[in-house]
Amino acid sequence: MLRLHIGNKNYSSWSMRAWVLLRQAGISFEEKYVRFDGFDAGSAFKRTMSAVSPTATVPLLQDGDVTIWDSLAIAEYVAEQFPEKRLWPEDRAARAAARSAVAEMHGGFTALRSACSMNIEADLADMGRIIWRDNAGVRKDMERITAMWIQLLARYGGPMLFGEFSVADAYYAPVCSRIRTYQLPVPGEIAAYIEHVHQLPGVQAWIADALAEQDFIPMDEPYRSQR
Amino acid sequence: MLRLHIGNKNYSSWSMRAWVLLRQAGISFEEKYVRFDGFDAGSAFKRTMSAVSPTATVPLLQDGDVTIWDSLAIAEYVAEQFPEKRLWPEDRAARAAARSAVAEMHGGFTALRSACSMNIEADLADMGRIIWRDNAGVRKDMERITAMWIQLLARYGGPMLFGEFSVADAYYAPVCSRIRTYQLPVPGEIAAYIEHVHQLPGVQAWIADALAEQDFIPMDEPYRSQR
Repeated sequence: MLRLHIGNKNYSSWSMRAWVLLRQAGISFEEKYVRFDGFDAGSAFKRTMSAVSPTATVPLLQDGDVTIWDSLAIAEYVAEQFPEKRLWPEDRAARAAARSAVAEMHGGFTALRSACSMNIEADLADMGRIIWRDNAGVRKDMERITAMWIQLLARYGGPMLFGEFSVADAYYAPVCSRIRTYQLPVPGEIAAYIEHVHQLPGVQAWIADALAEQDFIPMDEPYRSQR
Repeated sequence: MLRLHIGNKNYSSWSMRAWVLLRQAGISFEEKYVRFDGFDAGSAFKRTMSAVSPTATVPLLQDGDVTIWDSLAIAEYVAEQFPEKRLWPEDRAARAAARSAVAEMHGGFTALRSACSMNIEADLADMGRIIWRDNAGVRKDMERITAMWIQLLARYGGPMLFGEFSVADAYYAPVCSRIRTYQLPVPGEIAAYIEHVHQLPGVQAWIADALAEQDFIPMDEPYRSQR
């Protein structure tokens, strides 16, 4: 049985990517929740994760004695182990584009990730307006993301980025969540994609759990003093 | 024929990863050099790369009408297209660890990447001493990198991180180069690994080309005013 270690569902965007991928694909796994109490070496989170991971980060996937300590490596591992789930597009060119899009998310969009941290339960539309007005890096990241989505949706016909659900949609699901939380302006043509991602059963299940947490982690709350 | 677009060999660490992977594996490719004159939209570099890439970055791999615009996606593409080259370890657990190590490099070690940008021809030992003294982030990144290498070299027996050459060594080759340029202190047990990487024919070929460039790009020279 696969075991996936994750952080708070309300906040942990990297955990969400791996969890939504598995859940939406219908792959069974045991979930190990490790609360984000802090990221110092002495925190319960770091002590718990240090015991199982070389980087003490989430997500972490264990499959027997195999340990995978990064969300993208988890996606590749699961795609290999469950080829019938077709987690990457079957077409070679589409697969290359999907891996490029996923890797671009994995290593980039730092302005958006930094200014608009994921916070599923919050309504941060006011902050979103200020960020959009003042943060050129966020606008630039969003410009690239929306251009990519428009191009892929047109090329592969939607409703997902490569037609059917793939790793790419799991990878951009937390971006869709951020766009909703901060109500960032997006071209009308991709609002439908964001809604499709929102309605995926795997995403809905994650969101329901996130809303049920009712937790408040100050280090993940740059814009709220309380719930 | 594969066509790989790269930046200056003296400076472009992401280009080096893709190029060394292909060259060391003996995969034929055409090389398209695009000089780093600047990263503004009006620069020759960005204008040239915009015509072929959605992100206008290097490395970029083209295989007929297939375009791959990220170094990690390039590695996965090439590993799929040339299975006989065994670019990932054959053992499932080792392959999962290799992908995790590569993804960790792809998305992390930002302090080291920022403070110690690659500069193959330069001797920046003095700056290295100052960085090591003052920059806790660099020390922390190096602590994790050396711990990872020690663990992998012990587990898989060396001389490469997973025994034989794999994507992981190509991915960490620019880190080995930085350690040499800045003469960052490393445990004795991994000095041999750094030397093995340095002596790989694919790495030697890249370094020879880098030394022959004799170019000077101010935006990539935070510590030198001239060659």
